[in-house]
Amino acid sequence: MALVAEIIGVGTELLLGNTVNTNARDISEGLSALGINVYFHTVVGDNPSRLRLAVEIAKRRADIIITTGGLGPTYDDLTKQTLAECFGKKLVFNEEEAECIRSYFEKSLHTTKFTENNMQQAMLPEGCTIFHNEWGTAPGCAFRGDGKHVIMLPGPPRECNAMFNNCAVPYLKALSETEILSHSIRIFGMGESAVEDRLRDLMTELKNPTLAPYAKEGEVMLRVTAMADTAEQCEALMAPVIEKVREALGDIIYAIDEDSLESVVLRILREKNLTVAAAESCTGGLLQKRLTDIPGASKCFKGGAVTYSDNAKTLMADVPAELLEKEGAVSAAAAKALAEGIRLRLGTEFGLGITGVAGPDRDERGNEVGTVFVALSAIDGAYCRSLHLGADRGRIRTSAVNNALDMLRRYLTGLKI
Amino acid sequence: MALVAEIIGVGTELLLGNTVNTNARDISEGLSALGINVYFHTVVGDNPSRLRLAVEIAKRRADIIITTGGLGPTYDDLTKQTLAECFGKKLVFNEEEAECIRSYFEKSLHTTKFTENNMQQAMLPEGCTIFHNEWGTAPGCAFRGDGKHVIMLPGPPRECNAMFNNCAVPYLKALSETEILSHSIRIFGMGESAVEDRLRDLMTELKNPTLAPYAKEGEVMLRVTAMADTAEQCEALMAPVIEKVREALGDIIYAIDEDSLESVVLRILREKNLTVAAAESCTGGLLQKRLTDIPGASKCFKGGAVTYSDNAKTLMADVPAELLEKEGAVSAAAAKALAEGIRLRLGTEFGLGITGVAGPDRDERGNEVGTVFVALSAIDGAYCRSLHLGADRGRIRTSAVNNALDMLRRYLTGLKI
Repeated sequence: MALVAEIIGVGTELLLGNTVNTNARDISEGLSALGINVYFHTVVGDNPSRLRLAVEIAKRRADIIITTGGLGPTYDDLTKQTLAECFGKKLVFNEEEAECIRSYFEKSLHTTKFTENNMQQAMLPEGCTIFHNEWGTAPGCAFRGDGKHVIMLPGPPRECNAMFNNCAVPYLKALSETEILSHSIRIFGMGESAVEDRLRDLMTELKNPTLAPYAKEGEVMLRVTAMADTAEQCEALMAPVIEKVREALGDIIYAIDEDSLESVVLRILREKNLTVAAAESCTGGLLQKRLTDIPGASKCFKGGAVTYSDNAKTLMADVPAELLEKEGAVSAAAAKALAEGIRLRLGTEFGLGITGVAGPDRDERGNEVGTVFVALSAIDGAYCRSLHLGADRGRIRTSAVNNALDMLRRYLTGLKI
Repeated sequence: MALVAEIIGVGTELLLGNTVNTNARDISEGLSALGINVYFHTVVGDNPSRLRLAVEIAKRRADIIITTGGLGPTYDDLTKQTLAECFGKKLVFNEEEAECIRSYFEKSLHTTKFTENNMQQAMLPEGCTIFHNEWGTAPGCAFRGDGKHVIMLPGPPRECNAMFNNCAVPYLKALSETEILSHSIRIFGMGESAVEDRLRDLMTELKNPTLAPYAKEGEVMLRVTAMADTAEQCEALMAPVIEKVREALGDIIYAIDEDSLESVVLRILREKNLTVAAAESCTGGLLQKRLTDIPGASKCFKGGAVTYSDNAKTLMADVPAELLEKEGAVSAAAAKALAEGIRLRLGTEFGLGITGVAGPDRDERGNEVGTVFVALSAIDGAYCRSLHLGADRGRIRTSAVNNALDMLRRYLTGLKI
């Protein structure tokens, strides 16, 4: 039986919306990799009675309780006191940790001036495993009580992450015998419900591995997760399922485990030693922004234009003014001319061109909001997709960029565009 | 007595650590502005019995229960069914919403081919207030049951946010007899702790209105919130506080209530009938993407270049090759040349140029990661900021763009750049 953990985030700043609970996300991801189930996250303020309530509830439904936050030196840092009380433990002063806190102040903050409440951080539950904090002052710890494992980590994400990975993970690994692994299947070109329709039988009948869909940013992702004694057994369980998904969905699967269309496209370009440039109208730089989100993009992406006026299309991407006059700036001809113009100007193997109406209003030629032309120019000619992408500005732009990247991906892998 | 709300995030992806619960943060921030207290957040997977448990617990400790997620068309979207059961409500088919879903598919996705499970989204708790979803297909809703207010919102953050602000906020406002109003004071150019240091006395002594800081994306925002019988009384309470903040912080306040540097800049340009162009190296299109996020940007933003190679800097923004050779691409001279080159090429009043090292590695001339030059070219000359922005790629890019926008804002409002 897999162990069940619950994560309790402590901090009023979370409840006021000042901070987002990235600790719960990061710890959950780490627990999932350890084969430990997480059924609940709770967030509670710096309030001992409500924290006590949250712990009492967690005790009833989890084997492992992990808290984040409230270990610091200030008067509202009450996690250790409260958890110790909940499990009938005393807090005892730890001279070694006190020494570490003193020397942290001297070394990192270049001061010996610290208030006595900093020493409160050296008070730890009796008999606990101390998690020494090399990234700040407040130590974390783990202890057993009432048949549960309790782990306390500091709140600042950098400290919490480092201590989870370096201290809590080894502690937890020793508790579990099962291995759990997962793969992400990335899809572009089919909606979540259509994907599910094709895979419903598979998804409902599967128990180990499991198969679950996630929709985000106009794409669909399927996650396959297997549990077994060894990593090899996990892989062996997943392989036939991934194969079945491939059979059902074909080439709309753009990657396994890689995390975006732009990273796939840049990887293939790098492998083939090819380059791309872009000229964007309605997407206003989003395509190039996404390409350059990826470290090392400069090897394959040379640059491009944002042509937010007719004039800019001519001056930046050599689109003939007559073409714009005759066909209009929102046309297949203009998209192809943008793609080709920028490719020739920057001397790359590929050019991507996007033009369309992102709204809020129709353009002066009466093209509806959501009308977008996306073009790819390559050495053997130009390709264009004519799209109707609804009425939401953000979605139109995201989807237009996804389509541009997908066209290049399909070209690069020899698929029909 | 202030009402108490609890936010329940539904979605296995949250428990697996695939997604971070930004919805809870955004909703908490909104509730705080309404004077509604939040004592707990809970996250639960797509599992009806555990969701039921979470709802039963929330019933005991909150007046308002807000769920996010699980409203979609797939078999694991079970929030509506489960919540309806918990409060003894029937789900009934709503023909109007069904029609909206049909037409969404036709208009936005240009297909009448949608699977019948999409119609499940038109099943809503009897007697509820429907929150129509203009940003996706799944409607949300609100109903009263067992003395509680229940609000259900979709999971995708874009939809959740829009529906919280447009549907849930008016619904919640109607519950309270007190008027609550708030203003956001936007700041660029000073860190959160420095801002707090200057305003500590004011923040701690104030009870109504309250004054609270929020840090995000390299900016700081202060929220003033007042509670009174009428809107006029709220405004009268807030005015002297805003004045005091202005006195303390001066011209690093770039806006009251406007929500970004780019929208402030575009508004002023529009008012003055002026235009801007941009040439970006290390930010790879992010500046232009952010300008064009704003509907109507084309009136003042004409276009620009993404110059991700030396060659592109010359070909797209007329930066002399000798200058790049002599000064290097990462230099004040190059930034100014980018800004001026693109301004002259596109015939705008202003040009913005950004060049720097976003990482992961130093450039070939040994400039450290985080070294960025941001320039503004205007008719009376060029201005440049030389920045050291740390080591995080995303943060470097965001901060570089913020600086470019801030320079133009300061120029446009006659401040020292």
